[in-house]
Amino acid sequence: MALDEVLAYLQAHRQTHVDQLCDLLRIPSISSQSAHAPDVMRAAVFCAEELRSLGLEATIVEGEGHPLVFAQTALHADRPTLLMYGHYDVQPVDPLDLWHTPPFEPRIEDGIIYARGSTDDKGQFYAHIKALEAYVRTGTELPVNLKFILEGEEECGGQHIYRYTEQHAEQMACDAVIISDTALYNETTPGICYSLKGLVYMEIRVTGPSRDLHSGSYGGTVQNPANALAQIIAGLKDAQGRCTVPGFYDDVLDLDAEERLAFAALNYTDDVLREETGAPGAAGEAGYTTLERMWARPTCDVNGLLSGYGGQGAKTIIPSHAMAKVSMRVVPNQDPPRIAAAFAEWVRRLAPPGVTVEVENLHNAKPVLVPRDSPMMQAGIRALRAGFGAEPVFIREGGSIPIVGTFQSCLKAPVLLLGYGLSTDNAHSPNEKFHLENFWRGARTSALLFQEAAGR
Amino acid sequence: MALDEVLAYLQAHRQTHVDQLCDLLRIPSISSQSAHAPDVMRAAVFCAEELRSLGLEATIVEGEGHPLVFAQTALHADRPTLLMYGHYDVQPVDPLDLWHTPPFEPRIEDGIIYARGSTDDKGQFYAHIKALEAYVRTGTELPVNLKFILEGEEECGGQHIYRYTEQHAEQMACDAVIISDTALYNETTPGICYSLKGLVYMEIRVTGPSRDLHSGSYGGTVQNPANALAQIIAGLKDAQGRCTVPGFYDDVLDLDAEERLAFAALNYTDDVLREETGAPGAAGEAGYTTLERMWARPTCDVNGLLSGYGGQGAKTIIPSHAMAKVSMRVVPNQDPPRIAAAFAEWVRRLAPPGVTVEVENLHNAKPVLVPRDSPMMQAGIRALRAGFGAEPVFIREGGSIPIVGTFQSCLKAPVLLLGYGLSTDNAHSPNEKFHLENFWRGARTSALLFQEAAGR
Repeated sequence: MALDEVLAYLQAHRQTHVDQLCDLLRIPSISSQSAHAPDVMRAAVFCAEELRSLGLEATIVEGEGHPLVFAQTALHADRPTLLMYGHYDVQPVDPLDLWHTPPFEPRIEDGIIYARGSTDDKGQFYAHIKALEAYVRTGTELPVNLKFILEGEEECGGQHIYRYTEQHAEQMACDAVIISDTALYNETTPGICYSLKGLVYMEIRVTGPSRDLHSGSYGGTVQNPANALAQIIAGLKDAQGRCTVPGFYDDVLDLDAEERLAFAALNYTDDVLREETGAPGAAGEAGYTTLERMWARPTCDVNGLLSGYGGQGAKTIIPSHAMAKVSMRVVPNQDPPRIAAAFAEWVRRLAPPGVTVEVENLHNAKPVLVPRDSPMMQAGIRALRAGFGAEPVFIREGGSIPIVGTFQSCLKAPVLLLGYGLSTDNAHSPNEKFHLENFWRGARTSALLFQEAAGR
Repeated sequence: MALDEVLAYLQAHRQTHVDQLCDLLRIPSISSQSAHAPDVMRAAVFCAEELRSLGLEATIVEGEGHPLVFAQTALHADRPTLLMYGHYDVQPVDPLDLWHTPPFEPRIEDGIIYARGSTDDKGQFYAHIKALEAYVRTGTELPVNLKFILEGEEECGGQHIYRYTEQHAEQMACDAVIISDTALYNETTPGICYSLKGLVYMEIRVTGPSRDLHSGSYGGTVQNPANALAQIIAGLKDAQGRCTVPGFYDDVLDLDAEERLAFAALNYTDDVLREETGAPGAAGEAGYTTLERMWARPTCDVNGLLSGYGGQGAKTIIPSHAMAKVSMRVVPNQDPPRIAAAFAEWVRRLAPPGVTVEVENLHNAKPVLVPRDSPMMQAGIRALRAGFGAEPVFIREGGSIPIVGTFQSCLKAPVLLLGYGLSTDNAHSPNEKFHLENFWRGARTSALLFQEAAGR
């Protein structure tokens, strides 16, 4: 059977594939640092050349910001088309002194590869390419058409892929989008993610006096912007931990009974939360379990506060300004622009007299929910089950992948979030890592998915 | 007449005295920043050497923290003794980018000198030294004995002068303490201050998770320390602008009817407040006029907030820590240690579950009230009237001069608060300044005071 040959090929080339991944990981493609722009381009060239060598038509799309890579196999009308997304740019590496070995010199120890970008996202999308290679090199007919869209701005919030997707929906047309940039549920349990939270990121700037005042000279006479800001922030939540922004929950899709049971079955305990976060305990909106809050309830968190004197010792001033960054993780079917507007209006109403308040919406991402019972989701589950040799669970994700919303709206195709990493892989942190076993299982899963997606 | 010679000397040396003051202002003697400790010492040496050059016995007293300078003239039993207090340390300079010229490069424009420490307090106490110089250089008999106690820890709450005063009450014995570290009532009206607020300075540190968390991964699951801090701060005041710390108002001495009338007669309008501060309007405790709140009601102000990400753009984290500096200006007869303890207890009660809270009392100062009808107060009024050529008014002051309480209790001498600055001089703010005219009038007032205090 042809599929056996594909899987045997993957098995036989495990070490070669790791060596090739190391070559990709050695490119310091840090997209947010302009000095590394040539490295981001090198990573794009690496991917485009490899896809070309597998017979695909591959283009490096240059424009504003870092390049994209778009590639596709020959398109057969009788085969479904999968669009594979990934990003070859990586996060900065600081604090560098916390890395045990240099971030761009991959080190393998106990079956784990340590390098910046290993799990986020080079190791994950490269598994798809290895699956494709197995078909090509064994002369096995690919049961799907494949398109690849790889970007170099995921870690720096670049807009290139958004504009490209809006302008090339026809070229990118597909039956499903496959994204491997999330995580397994845990080391022994694969997960398939069916929902991502969106994001509404706001900055609040409160201004009082035109300069910092001596708190002895003017204490008690004018509104203190830092006190006013605290009052505003405190007013954003009620005693039940619910966000008070008017209409905030209006469009929130409640968890259904089946989901609540499934979440409960995962048995995510507060002991695990404490261990993972170091926090003294769990906290949040009343009436929901920790996992329900993490995955399916909207949040409102201060990300930063800045006002007055933050140094050592005492400085007795009434600060002129106070600033807070506040973001809301929103859930289906909340609408980010609507939430942003309601938030801004509410903050202005919460502000006490005697200060001026500016509220800015820094950026938004749409929440994502994909049906669990779609044929593509079922195909993904079968592929994961066989690829990882364990029963997958449905998971949701509190983070956002902003491009998903754009794929959904421009391409009108279902999105499959098939993560091969682990939440403990130190994405964005020192000593980022990726389990080789998950790299190999991921490649196998991708190979199986091509079959399953074609209904074979 | 000898006094005429003294005043003529001051008139003739106006520019020289300004140049000398500039030399003192160039020393960046920021006491709260340990890197500037050598500068605080340089300022001490500057003052001690100048006093020695005027024939005083001057000592630099080293100990824990920054040095003191103690100096005295020959002591004649038939002359009253004045103890002149000042501080040669200064506030930090941040935010540095708001200064129009560097804070330690004095700039003179339109009769105003701009530099950190110009009004608080180098320019003010230096006026006393120039008055003394005028007596010495003109060979005029000084009608009083003078002692100087100058310190380098006023802006950082250091304890050196307190311990020294407690242990050297005999050396420092005097008939009155003269302090010029307050303000005139306004540009045209000198004031003599009979009450100071005290200070209770606290730092609140809230800790949640052991590291900054990805707000996507853990949003909604743990208490956010910055949200918790905002909730604590908001809880410190009620809707009437009153501080909610239990027992806060128990020992507050109410204003008497005469004071309220005198305050009202000064006609301090909210328009003036707006002009002075740039704030959109007045705000504060209900039931009191702006001047009553400024001078005689206790306050509770945030001096600084710091948590998470304060840079450009967005960073989606739940911060591990949040910090606030909060100070209360207390009035006679509130007891700072008692208020500090009540505050700490109250903050712990206001804290939501899921965070740990530390509250530290960084420093305290006792409030001060002196009788308005004492002979020394009357001498001060005559000196001010002649020195400034205008009728002085009685004022109170919202700021604190912590050492006054210790002088009162250890030296059993009346304290005269003879301010030469202006409340609009930007003490503690960028572009701190001092009017040269007030520097010169101040020196003249000091010279006159030596006569008036001796009853001549």
